[in-house]
Amino acid sequence: MIGRLNHVAIAVPDLGAAAERYRSAFGATVTGPDALPEHGVTVMFIELPNTKIELLAPLGADSPIAAFLARNPAGGMHHVCYEVDDILAARDRLLATGARVLGTGEPKTGAHGRPVLFLHPKDFDGTLIELEEVA
Amino acid sequence: MIGRLNHVAIAVPDLGAAAERYRSAFGATVTGPDALPEHGVTVMFIELPNTKIELLAPLGADSPIAAFLARNPAGGMHHVCYEVDDILAARDRLLATGARVLGTGEPKTGAHGRPVLFLHPKDFDGTLIELEEVA
Repeated sequence: MIGRLNHVAIAVPDLGAAAERYRSAFGATVTGPDALPEHGVTVMFIELPNTKIELLAPLGADSPIAAFLARNPAGGMHHVCYEVDDILAARDRLLATGARVLGTGEPKTGAHGRPVLFLHPKDFDGTLIELEEVA
Repeated sequence: MIGRLNHVAIAVPDLGAAAERYRSAFGATVTGPDALPEHGVTVMFIELPNTKIELLAPLGADSPIAAFLARNPAGGMHHVCYEVDDILAARDRLLATGARVLGTGEPKTGAHGRPVLFLHPKDFDGTLIELEEVA
Protein backbone atom coordinates (compact mmCIF):
# COMPACT_ATOMS: atom_id res chain seq x y z
CA MET A 1 0.00 0.00 0.00
CA ILE A 2 2.86 2.44 0.67
CA GLY A 3 3.71 4.38 -2.47
CA ARG A 4 6.23 6.97 -3.59
CA LEU A 5 8.08 9.24 -1.23
CA ASN A 6 6.26 12.45 -2.12
CA HIS A 7 8.61 14.74 -0.18
CA VAL A 8 10.88 15.21 2.80
CA ALA A 9 10.00 18.35 4.77
CA ILE A 10 12.67 20.45 6.43
CA ALA A 11 11.66 23.26 8.79
CA VAL A 12 13.91 26.30 8.37
CA PRO A 13 14.15 29.61 10.19
CA ASP A 14 14.79 31.65 7.01
CA LEU A 15 13.35 30.40 3.71
CA GLY A 16 15.21 32.86 1.52
CA ALA A 17 18.56 32.01 3.04
CA ALA A 18 17.87 28.28 2.79
CA ALA A 19 16.81 28.53 -0.86
CA GLU A 20 19.86 30.58 -1.75
CA ARG A 21 22.13 28.07 -0.01
CA TYR A 22 20.70 25.10 -1.93
CA ARG A 23 20.96 27.05 -5.17
CA SER A 24 24.54 28.19 -4.68
CA ALA A 25 25.97 25.13 -2.94
CA PHE A 26 24.15 22.48 -5.00
CA GLY A 27 22.93 24.21 -8.13
CA ALA A 28 19.46 23.13 -7.06
CA THR A 29 16.21 24.26 -8.68
CA VAL A 30 14.15 25.82 -5.90
CA THR A 31 10.56 26.98 -6.52
CA GLY A 32 8.27 29.23 -4.47
CA PRO A 33 7.78 30.72 -1.97
CA ASP A 34 4.09 29.93 -1.67
CA ALA A 35 2.27 31.30 1.36
CA LEU A 36 -0.35 28.87 2.66
CA PRO A 37 -2.07 30.81 5.45
CA GLU A 38 -4.69 28.09 5.98
CA HIS A 39 -1.83 25.70 6.81
CA GLY A 40 0.25 28.18 8.80
CA VAL A 41 3.33 27.75 6.64
CA THR A 42 5.18 29.24 3.71
CA VAL A 43 6.75 26.59 1.48
CA MET A 44 9.48 26.33 -1.12
CA PHE A 45 10.41 23.17 -3.01
CA ILE A 46 13.80 21.82 -4.01
CA GLU A 47 13.08 19.87 -7.18
CA LEU A 48 15.02 16.60 -7.46
CA PRO A 49 14.85 14.10 -10.33
CA ASN A 50 12.88 11.56 -8.27
CA THR A 51 11.17 13.53 -5.48
CA LYS A 52 11.28 16.91 -3.78
CA ILE A 53 12.38 18.56 -0.57
CA GLU A 54 9.80 20.84 1.03
CA LEU A 55 11.29 23.79 2.93
CA LEU A 56 8.82 25.01 5.55
CA ALA A 57 8.77 28.29 7.45
CA PRO A 58 6.10 29.35 9.93
CA LEU A 59 3.35 31.74 8.82
CA GLY A 60 1.04 33.42 11.30
CA ALA A 61 0.54 33.00 15.01
CA ASP A 62 -0.60 29.36 15.09
CA SER A 63 1.86 27.69 12.76
CA PRO A 64 2.04 23.91 13.21
CA ILE A 65 5.84 24.12 12.95
CA ALA A 66 6.34 26.91 15.51
CA ALA A 67 6.91 24.48 18.39
CA PHE A 68 9.37 22.45 16.33
CA LEU A 69 11.41 25.54 15.50
CA ALA A 70 11.29 26.67 19.12
CA ARG A 71 12.90 23.32 20.04
CA ASN A 72 15.22 23.38 16.99
CA PRO A 73 15.99 27.05 16.27
CA ALA A 74 18.43 26.17 13.47
CA GLY A 75 15.79 24.04 11.75
CA GLY A 76 15.73 20.33 11.05
CA MET A 77 14.07 17.43 9.28
CA HIS A 78 10.37 17.70 10.15
CA HIS A 79 8.48 14.91 8.36
CA VAL A 80 8.35 12.52 5.43
CA CYS A 81 5.33 12.18 3.17
CA TYR A 82 4.34 8.91 1.52
CA GLU A 83 1.77 8.60 -1.23
CA VAL A 84 -1.16 6.19 -0.92
CA ASP A 85 -3.92 5.33 -3.38
CA ASP A 86 -6.74 5.25 -0.86
CA ILE A 87 -6.20 7.25 2.30
CA LEU A 88 -9.19 5.82 4.18
CA ALA A 89 -8.12 2.24 3.47
CA ALA A 90 -4.57 3.18 4.53
CA ARG A 91 -5.86 4.75 7.73
CA ASP A 92 -7.98 1.75 8.63
CA ARG A 93 -5.08 -0.64 8.05
CA LEU A 94 -2.84 1.54 10.22
CA LEU A 95 -5.40 1.76 13.01
CA ALA A 96 -5.83 -2.02 12.92
CA THR A 97 -2.10 -2.41 13.65
CA GLY A 98 -2.33 -0.04 16.61
CA ALA A 99 -0.79 3.03 14.94
CA ARG A 100 -2.25 6.38 15.90
CA VAL A 101 -3.53 9.04 13.52
CA LEU A 102 -3.14 12.63 14.70
CA GLY A 103 -6.07 15.04 15.08
CA THR A 104 -9.61 13.89 14.48
CA GLY A 105 -8.56 10.88 12.43
CA GLU A 106 -10.33 12.28 9.37
CA PRO A 107 -8.25 13.37 6.36
CA LYS A 108 -7.76 17.09 5.83
CA THR A 109 -6.93 18.90 2.64
CA GLY A 110 -3.15 19.19 2.55
CA ALA A 111 -0.80 21.80 1.17
CA HIS A 112 -1.13 20.29 -2.32
CA GLY A 113 -4.94 20.24 -2.30
CA ARG A 114 -5.17 16.50 -1.69
CA PRO A 115 -6.38 14.50 1.35
CA VAL A 116 -3.69 14.03 3.99
CA LEU A 117 -3.26 12.47 7.42
CA PHE A 118 -0.40 12.61 9.91
CA LEU A 119 0.68 9.63 12.01
CA HIS A 120 2.00 9.76 15.55
CA PRO A 121 5.82 9.89 15.53
CA LYS A 122 5.96 7.68 18.63
CA ASP A 123 4.61 4.81 16.55
CA PHE A 124 7.34 5.18 13.89
CA ASP A 125 10.69 5.60 15.64
CA GLY A 126 10.37 9.33 16.25
CA THR A 127 9.47 10.05 12.62
CA LEU A 128 6.46 12.18 11.78
CA ILE A 129 4.78 10.61 8.74
CA GLU A 130 2.31 12.34 6.43
CA LEU A 131 0.18 10.26 4.09
CA GLU A 132 -1.13 11.92 0.95
CA GLU A 133 -3.76 10.40 -1.32
CA VAL A 134 -2.82 10.54 -4.98
CA ALA A 135 -5.66 9.38 -7.18
CA MET B 1 24.76 19.26 -9.70
CA ILE B 2 22.40 17.84 -7.06
CA GLY B 3 20.91 14.55 -8.23
CA ARG B 4 18.40 12.01 -6.99
CA LEU B 5 17.46 11.58 -3.38
CA ASN B 6 19.24 8.27 -2.80
CA HIS B 7 17.70 7.65 0.62
CA VAL B 8 16.38 9.08 3.85
CA ALA B 9 18.03 7.51 6.90
CA ILE B 10 16.10 6.90 10.09
CA ALA B 11 17.93 5.80 13.24
CA VAL B 12 15.92 3.24 15.18
CA PRO B 13 16.46 1.50 18.52
CA ASP B 14 15.17 -1.88 17.31
CA LEU B 15 15.52 -2.79 13.63
CA GLY B 16 13.36 -5.88 13.75
CA ALA B 17 10.49 -4.06 15.40
CA ALA B 18 10.77 -1.15 12.95
CA ALA B 19 10.81 -3.47 9.93
CA GLU B 20 7.81 -5.40 11.19
CA ARG B 21 5.90 -2.17 11.80
CA TYR B 22 6.50 -0.90 8.25
CA ARG B 23 5.52 -4.28 6.85
CA SER B 24 2.33 -4.66 8.85
CA ALA B 25 1.19 -1.04 8.89
CA PHE B 26 2.13 -0.13 5.32
CA GLY B 27 2.61 -3.40 3.47
CA ALA B 28 6.13 -2.21 2.78
CA THR B 29 8.90 -4.31 1.25
CA VAL B 30 11.77 -4.24 3.75
CA THR B 31 15.14 -5.84 2.93
CA GLY B 32 18.07 -6.79 5.14
CA PRO B 33 19.35 -6.68 7.82
CA ASP B 34 22.92 -6.15 6.62
CA ALA B 35 25.59 -5.77 9.27
CA LEU B 36 28.27 -3.26 8.25
CA PRO B 37 30.84 -3.47 11.04
CA GLU B 38 33.26 -1.14 9.25
CA HIS B 39 30.54 1.54 9.35
CA GLY B 40 29.30 0.76 12.86
CA VAL B 41 25.72 0.19 11.74
CA THR B 42 23.28 -2.50 10.76
CA VAL B 43 20.93 -1.42 7.97
CA MET B 44 17.59 -2.39 6.52
CA PHE B 45 15.91 -0.74 3.54
CA ILE B 46 12.29 0.09 2.93
CA GLU B 47 11.94 -0.09 -0.84
CA LEU B 48 9.72 2.62 -2.34
CA PRO B 49 8.90 3.09 -6.03
CA ASN B 50 11.14 6.17 -6.34
CA THR B 51 13.71 5.95 -3.51
CA LYS B 52 14.35 4.08 -0.28
CA ILE B 53 14.31 4.57 3.46
CA GLU B 54 17.41 3.35 5.28
CA LEU B 55 16.75 2.08 8.79
CA LEU B 56 19.93 2.31 10.87
CA ALA B 57 20.78 0.64 14.18
CA PRO B 58 24.10 0.90 16.00
CA LEU B 59 26.63 -1.91 15.68
CA GLY B 60 29.65 -2.13 17.93
CA ALA B 61 31.10 0.24 20.49
CA ASP B 62 31.91 3.19 18.24
CA SER B 63 28.80 3.49 16.16
CA PRO B 64 28.42 6.89 14.47
CA ILE B 65 24.73 6.89 15.41
CA ALA B 66 25.17 6.04 19.10
CA ALA B 67 25.20 9.69 20.17
CA PHE B 68 22.11 10.45 18.10
CA LEU B 69 20.19 7.58 19.71
CA ALA B 70 21.38 8.66 23.15
CA ARG B 71 19.80 12.06 22.46
CA ASN B 72 16.77 10.52 20.72
CA PRO B 73 16.13 7.16 22.38
CA ALA B 74 12.96 6.54 20.37
CA GLY B 75 14.86 7.14 17.12
CA GLY B 76 14.40 9.82 14.50
CA MET B 77 15.28 11.10 11.05
CA HIS B 78 19.07 11.07 10.88
CA HIS B 79 20.17 12.23 7.42
CA VAL B 80 19.29 12.58 3.75
CA CYS B 81 21.55 11.35 0.97
CA TYR B 82 21.76 13.06 -2.41
CA GLU B 83 23.46 11.58 -5.45
CA VAL B 84 26.14 13.51 -7.32
CA ASP B 85 28.02 12.63 -10.51
CA ASP B 86 31.43 13.84 -9.33
CA ILE B 87 31.94 13.99 -5.58
CA LEU B 88 35.20 15.95 -5.70
CA ALA B 89 33.68 18.62 -7.95
CA ALA B 90 30.66 18.73 -5.65
CA ARG B 91 32.88 19.09 -2.60
CA ASP B 92 34.90 21.90 -4.13
CA ARG B 93 31.77 23.80 -5.11
CA LEU B 94 30.40 23.38 -1.59
CA LEU B 95 33.63 24.53 0.04
CA ALA B 96 33.71 27.57 -2.24
CA THR B 97 30.29 28.61 -0.87
CA GLY B 98 31.52 28.26 2.71
CA ALA B 99 29.85 24.94 3.51
CA ARG B 100 31.79 22.55 5.74
CA VAL B 101 32.59 18.93 4.99
CA LEU B 102 32.84 16.63 8.01
CA GLY B 103 35.95 14.60 8.84
CA THR B 104 39.07 14.92 6.76
CA GLY B 105 37.27 16.39 3.77
CA GLU B 106 38.23 13.38 1.66
CA PRO B 107 35.51 10.97 0.45
CA LYS B 108 35.21 7.64 2.22
CA THR B 109 33.70 4.45 0.92
CA GLY B 110 30.09 4.48 2.04
CA ALA B 111 27.66 1.77 3.03
CA HIS B 112 26.91 1.04 -0.64
CA GLY B 113 30.56 0.78 -1.68
CA ARG B 114 30.63 4.20 -3.32
CA PRO B 115 32.44 7.42 -2.37
CA VAL B 116 30.55 9.51 0.18
CA LEU B 117 30.96 12.73 2.14
CA PHE B 118 28.91 14.23 4.96
CA LEU B 119 28.19 17.97 5.26
CA HIS B 120 27.89 19.92 8.48
CA PRO B 121 24.24 20.12 9.58
CA LYS B 122 24.76 23.67 10.84
CA ASP B 123 25.26 24.79 7.25
CA PHE B 124 21.95 23.26 6.11
CA ASP B 125 19.24 24.14 8.62
CA GLY B 126 20.03 21.37 11.06
CA THR B 127 19.96 18.69 8.35
CA LEU B 128 22.81 16.20 8.06
CA ILE B 129 23.46 15.68 4.34
CA GLU B 130 25.33 12.76 2.80
CA LEU B 131 26.57 13.01 -0.77
CA GLU B 132 27.12 9.80 -2.69
CA GLU B 133 28.88 9.58 -6.03
CA VAL B 134 26.99 7.52 -8.58
CA ALA B 135 29.00 7.05 -11.72
